[in-house]
Amino acid sequence: MDNWYYTEDSNYTAKMEEIFKDDTIFIMTSSFLIFTMQSGFGLLESGSASTKDEVNIMVKNIIDVVFGGLSYWLLGFGFSFGDDKRFENGFIGIGRFAYDPDAQDVEAHLEGWNYAAFLFQLSFATTASSIASGAMAERIRLNAHIIFSMVVVLIHAVTAHWVWAPSGFLNKMGVVDVAGCSVVHLVGGVIGFVATVYLRPRRNRFGAHGVHSISSPTNAILGTMMLWWGWLSFNTGSTWGNTGNRWRLASKSAVSTMLSSFAGGISGTFVSYVTTRKCQVMLLIDAVLAGLVSITAISAIARPWESLLIGAIGSALAIISVPMAENLRIDDPVGIIPVHVVAPIWGMIAVGIFAQEDPVIPITKGQYGLIYSGSFKLLGVQAVATLAVVLWSGLLGLIFLMLLHRSPFGLRMTDKEEAMGADWLEHALHGRNVSGYEVEQEVNQRSNVLQGLKSVFDFGWWNRRHPPVVIEPDSPEFELQANGGSLRPASQLRSISAAALLSLHTPSQSASATGSMLTENTSISCPLSPSRFKLQPA
Amino acid sequence: MDNWYYTEDSNYTAKMEEIFKDDTIFIMTSSFLIFTMQSGFGLLESGSASTKDEVNIMVKNIIDVVFGGLSYWLLGFGFSFGDDKRFENGFIGIGRFAYDPDAQDVEAHLEGWNYAAFLFQLSFATTASSIASGAMAERIRLNAHIIFSMVVVLIHAVTAHWVWAPSGFLNKMGVVDVAGCSVVHLVGGVIGFVATVYLRPRRNRFGAHGVHSISSPTNAILGTMMLWWGWLSFNTGSTWGNTGNRWRLASKSAVSTMLSSFAGGISGTFVSYVTTRKCQVMLLIDAVLAGLVSITAISAIARPWESLLIGAIGSALAIISVPMAENLRIDDPVGIIPVHVVAPIWGMIAVGIFAQEDPVIPITKGQYGLIYSGSFKLLGVQAVATLAVVLWSGLLGLIFLMLLHRSPFGLRMTDKEEAMGADWLEHALHGRNVSGYEVEQEVNQRSNVLQGLKSVFDFGWWNRRHPPVVIEPDSPEFELQANGGSLRPASQLRSISAAALLSLHTPSQSASATGSMLTENTSISCPLSPSRFKLQPA
Amino acid sequence: MDNWYYTEDSNYTAKMEEIFKDDTIFIMTSSFLIFTMQSGFGLLESGSASTKDEVNIMVKNIIDVVFGGLSYWLLGFGFSFGDDKRFENGFIGIGRFAYDPDAQDVEAHLEGWNYAAFLFQLSFATTASSIASGAMAERIRLNAHIIFSMVVVLIHAVTAHWVWAPSGFLNKMGVVDVAGCSVVHLVGGVIGFVATVYLRPRRNRFGAHGVHSISSPTNAILGTMMLWWGWLSFNTGSTWGNTGNRWRLASKSAVSTMLSSFAGGISGTFVSYVTTRKCQVMLLIDAVLAGLVSITAISAIARPWESLLIGAIGSALAIISVPMAENLRIDDPVGIIPVHVVAPIWGMIAVGIFAQEDPVIPITKGQYGLIYSGSFKLLGVQAVATLAVVLWSGLLGLIFLMLLHRSPFGLRMTDKEEAMGADWLEHALHGRNVSGYEVEQEVNQRSNVLQGLKSVFDFGWWNRRHPPVVIEPDSPEFELQANGGSLRPASQLRSISAAALLSLHTPSQSASATGSMLTENTSISCPLSPSRFKLQPA
Repeated sequence: MDNWYYTEDSNYTAKMEEIFKDDTIFIMTSSFLIFTMQSGFGLLESGSASTKDEVNIMVKNIIDVVFGGLSYWLLGFGFSFGDDKRFENGFIGIGRFAYDPDAQDVEAHLEGWNYAAFLFQLSFATTASSIASGAMAERIRLNAHIIFSMVVVLIHAVTAHWVWAPSGFLNKMGVVDVAGCSVVHLVGGVIGFVATVYLRPRRNRFGAHGVHSISSPTNAILGTMMLWWGWLSFNTGSTWGNTGNRWRLASKSAVSTMLSSFAGGISGTFVSYVTTRKCQVMLLIDAVLAGLVSITAISAIARPWESLLIGAIGSALAIISVPMAENLRIDDPVGIIPVHVVAPIWGMIAVGIFAQEDPVIPITKGQYGLIYSGSFKLLGVQAVATLAVVLWSGLLGLIFLMLLHRSPFGLRMTDKEEAMGADWLEHALHGRNVSGYEVEQEVNQRSNVLQGLKSVFDFGWWNRRHPPVVIEPDSPEFELQANGGSLRPASQLRSISAAALLSLHTPSQSASATGSMLTENTSISCPLSPSRFKLQPA
Repeated sequence: MDNWYYTEDSNYTAKMEEIFKDDTIFIMTSSFLIFTMQSGFGLLESGSASTKDEVNIMVKNIIDVVFGGLSYWLLGFGFSFGDDKRFENGFIGIGRFAYDPDAQDVEAHLEGWNYAAFLFQLSFATTASSIASGAMAERIRLNAHIIFSMVVVLIHAVTAHWVWAPSGFLNKMGVVDVAGCSVVHLVGGVIGFVATVYLRPRRNRFGAHGVHSISSPTNAILGTMMLWWGWLSFNTGSTWGNTGNRWRLASKSAVSTMLSSFAGGISGTFVSYVTTRKCQVMLLIDAVLAGLVSITAISAIARPWESLLIGAIGSALAIISVPMAENLRIDDPVGIIPVHVVAPIWGMIAVGIFAQEDPVIPITKGQYGLIYSGSFKLLGVQAVATLAVVLWSGLLGLIFLMLLHRSPFGLRMTDKEEAMGADWLEHALHGRNVSGYEVEQEVNQRSNVLQGLKSVFDFGWWNRRHPPVVIEPDSPEFELQANGGSLRPASQLRSISAAALLSLHTPSQSASATGSMLTENTSISCPLSPSRFKLQPA
Repeated sequence: MDNWYYTEDSNYTAKMEEIFKDDTIFIMTSSFLIFTMQSGFGLLESGSASTKDEVNIMVKNIIDVVFGGLSYWLLGFGFSFGDDKRFENGFIGIGRFAYDPDAQDVEAHLEGWNYAAFLFQLSFATTASSIASGAMAERIRLNAHIIFSMVVVLIHAVTAHWVWAPSGFLNKMGVVDVAGCSVVHLVGGVIGFVATVYLRPRRNRFGAHGVHSISSPTNAILGTMMLWWGWLSFNTGSTWGNTGNRWRLASKSAVSTMLSSFAGGISGTFVSYVTTRKCQVMLLIDAVLAGLVSITAISAIARPWESLLIGAIGSALAIISVPMAENLRIDDPVGIIPVHVVAPIWGMIAVGIFAQEDPVIPITKGQYGLIYSGSFKLLGVQAVATLAVVLWSGLLGLIFLMLLHRSPFGLRMTDKEEAMGADWLEHALHGRNVSGYEVEQEVNQRSNVLQGLKSVFDFGWWNRRHPPVVIEPDSPEFELQANGGSLRPASQLRSISAAALLSLHTPSQSASATGSMLTENTSISCPLSPSRFKLQPA
């Protein structure tokens, strides 16, 4: 929306002061909560990566804010909303560089408003930067990352001009993107997608012995929740104020955001159960976030049942893309393809299908979506905008990656450096964090939905029993459990929980364990080397 | 309070628009912060459970929101605040199912307000669902949990009709429950209590070798803090707006909420020191939260000293219930009995004792509590309401648990599945998270307060020295410490911190350690099997 | 600012009700977000300490709120803003003890406002207490900490009277401290500095085998982020409302806060790279926080380029102080010296240099800083205020530490108790949390900036290659990596990541690892005893 674009006015009344005050406080407070999404991205990305890089990724999220933020202040805000009339054009803004409202705005109330407007846009820009950075986790060098984070906000800033500035060419075509579905999520997602392909997968990620290692699913979920609640401010703040009946749109946005995430999460749970008979954590996260992204373009005008439908479809499309990427051996450490490529494309298209004009405020400039108008016009505009954003972000992202790759900074860690991990390499942290999880291989390479649906009718996902575990009552593992340990069986001889061994701690249990399993024969090897343990029971 | 219940009005003025705007933004923003409490519940529950289930519990908190939320949109909101005049009754609301304000409200401002009202109530409903779910941690099957989370919000929704809908029978009796002490906390708590008894304790929780394993006290405390700050919005938002002098009540609510939590925390610290001479983490958490719950029914009208008294008493009662449950062998993984059963019962009763009508807004409908009026009338009403909510929640909860138990979904994990842990079983996560804590057995089974008070006068809790540790200067453990390790002595040969062993890392220290302890003799056993290590020093 | 100090007024109009409502809701909501900073402090301190004390520190942050909060209600608020005219003086407030607005304020709107004003000040006071407590981590006894937390808020409360109360002597001199740079950060920092010196360093922190152990850099960064977003409310809320054109100051404050943190983070990254060729995590944290502290005194009136300059200088000064403290063997567990001593002193001085009066609201009482007025007057006032706060906090802090040391409670843990860790000692938690990080010794004792700058011109920090790692392709470590482990090389034979060993988990990898390294010879020792492993390769 571009009605935030106040221009100077000599008849400033007490009523206008009231309006400025309410709108400023509203978008300012919204931006505070949007900044908390940085914590969410940090935890989601850190928890989804290997233990050897978890600190590095948190650092990168600080980098995204401080370097990306400086870049946005210096150039980005000007590229988006520079208002130098001499250079006004549909492609890029000129003016407001190294932004200083005190110097530029004659009137105090405009100066105050513009500080808040800058802050709000800043919170969007650093979000785009954080999204893109997640895809490069565990492979990109830190100094390359610093430079790239400053570039990403500028790539975003130009698209924001197209879609949100009064003179932007997509804005003039009538595109509708309430809260940055295209200019934040899709921009970040496409750049991240290009980067993850360009950087090649993490070592050891694919292949027969490939491992999908996750340092902390708990942190990943906590990060997802932080994003979730921050999203409420992301979408409601995008009404750019609450006066002039806009409080109504904010309120509607909040409900559509929640409902879309509900449908997303439910859709994801269902697909995960159907295809793998497990509720996969990373899929559930992708599903909830895909639901949230899908609604961002239309949040202020979506009715409840539309929100549910948009979220469910977006989430289903997103999740189906996960095994596709896996089969194409595209390494996507934090789910950028489902959440920030597939979902926002659907979100932009959904506007063309479901949009209905608000009775009071011209959100859609009077346009209606396919099912209400029978016209493909808005759908076409949304598709053109999506294509423009995809091409621009992908191309610019690729060019800068190639430049960085050839620069003295370098781009990707060497194989050896990657094996050591960025926590040690970049931050001089000797680590001994033993926590970590792995997604089971067969579940990770889950087959497509159709095959999954077929299996439903063969076995029934509502079957009371889960698939029988491989171990038998007379196996050493069962012995362990029976003695009070909390061992999880290592299906396919792959992994034994060290926690299980540690939880054998009463003398009698330990004696029993030693008696039955940890004989001299086995105890020679370290019990933390699980397959040895498994291969040589007493 | 039910003054949020706006009805249609043909004389909508600019002044009214202002009121609608301010109230809508206020409860909407409050609901954003209330949703952050979901992160708090997730971390508190996950940190309080065993390592083998910590991810599963985070997932369940997502499930509570998405499935519970859908259920509330579909039916729950209608059960609470359905306004179909044909079916108006004191027991249940009818109407507003699959809620769509666009379709139901003719006037734009009512539509806007009702979106926010729905969102605000939704945040309460999912809270009730999260509270109940904590009690079933580590034992309930995920698919049973999904169904049950949808049921809990409906059980809550009916009680919300009783207490908050204009036609609700308890409301008409004059019950006072400002912020959901009965309809959110008590409903969730009683259902959780019934469930934890019905599901039986976790394996290995009680008995001679019983273990109270906690995956992360740090996360549990972080979760508690998140709940704390979210509670401020929970109680202040319950004024349903800030216009018409209600900003005064919000402001007073915030202070009473903080003061009650202070008194709760202090009371808990004192009881913990007196009875066990330690500051028990789980007790301190229960104490702060019990202080917060105790004030929810009366927050808007409680004066500072009343808040302190209510919090201190609620917290003391709550903490005394902990060893009771322990002695009755009721397994309460996340403290639902002290925090969400004992404290809200006290909170409801406290209104009958301390209530004073506000000079401007009729919060208590003109009623005064026992100490101000000398009348038992309000106390009686509060007691009846409490009893009604307890019986309804307990009975309905039990019925649905029995139905689920007999359904093809099943209810409880088998003993074997529980030993393996839900992280592997439900989510296909091979884990190797070695972190984890245990509460010392003698402290866990702490005796009652009177005995504790007696011990105070025997020894003095202000004694400068803590009880002497069992190890002696010539024992291997002391050697370890002296060499720079950070070993904690394994009282009762139960547990040695693996971290201690890992912190032996300078060559000289290691040599010394090897010399004195890790000879060939001992090194045959795994050092992580602590009692072996302890039993066979060099 | 002291324009929040409303006095009773018999002509209370609807317009005034509007003003009271807006200002109350604004500072109330700000205080909610300021309280979330307690979570931030808790995580930052807990993540920065050793694993054996991480829970204890979280508990202490609860203690700071509940005991510090009670102390503030009872006495602190009165010392700051007691308004008994009989005792009015510039040094300390008298009145408003055991604060009960219902009893003291005749008019309902004043009562409502004063509840919020108390809450807002309370959030500042507990922040001061949390800041001081971090410095005493891992050494102070819990019962001593409880008493000290109650004292710190009172020391703070008196300085708040000096600076913010209308009758305060520094206020009358014309000191400018918008958001508590001196009375919150400097008070907490100086007390913490005195305490950390008085308590002496942690055992094993310095010396040849000294270890700088960090339980979780991830949590420390997450805590930093939480502080960051909370700071926005800390600084913007300090306008004490949004009416009367103050929304403008809030908006400007938010932007200056973010820009200062950007410059701080960038400055810190640069200094860290220059001096150590690594991006040190703890330095980056200190840098961002130092940027935030530096701007707190001037936030409402700082222009963007001033904010950047103030943040960059504050952060550089802060970071330079870190190796100084290290060389003086002052143990500063959570960076209190750079962040809360150096940065706030600079922040106060910066006002004297950069202050410009706001065109509408008299923030600086008409005074201008050195570069705008050419006058040293404001600079002098700021210096006097800084000195007064430093002396008062340092002296009072020292006196109470000495009293506590001689009291029956005691102050510092014994060497043995410290070795065991407070988690076990105070909270009866048997821990087995194996996670933990160490900062590399040579990086930790990094030399000064000049030497670092010299090295830049020798090697160039933009050098594509990081310094070569010590291990060679035919070493066992490389073997490990090549086989798919994620081992980080143990530079200086100090530390091997247990995670690396655990990640050897496919049969073939394990076999290979066993073949090349874990022969009978090595496997006798525990692989978690890293130096043994390193010293005896196959």
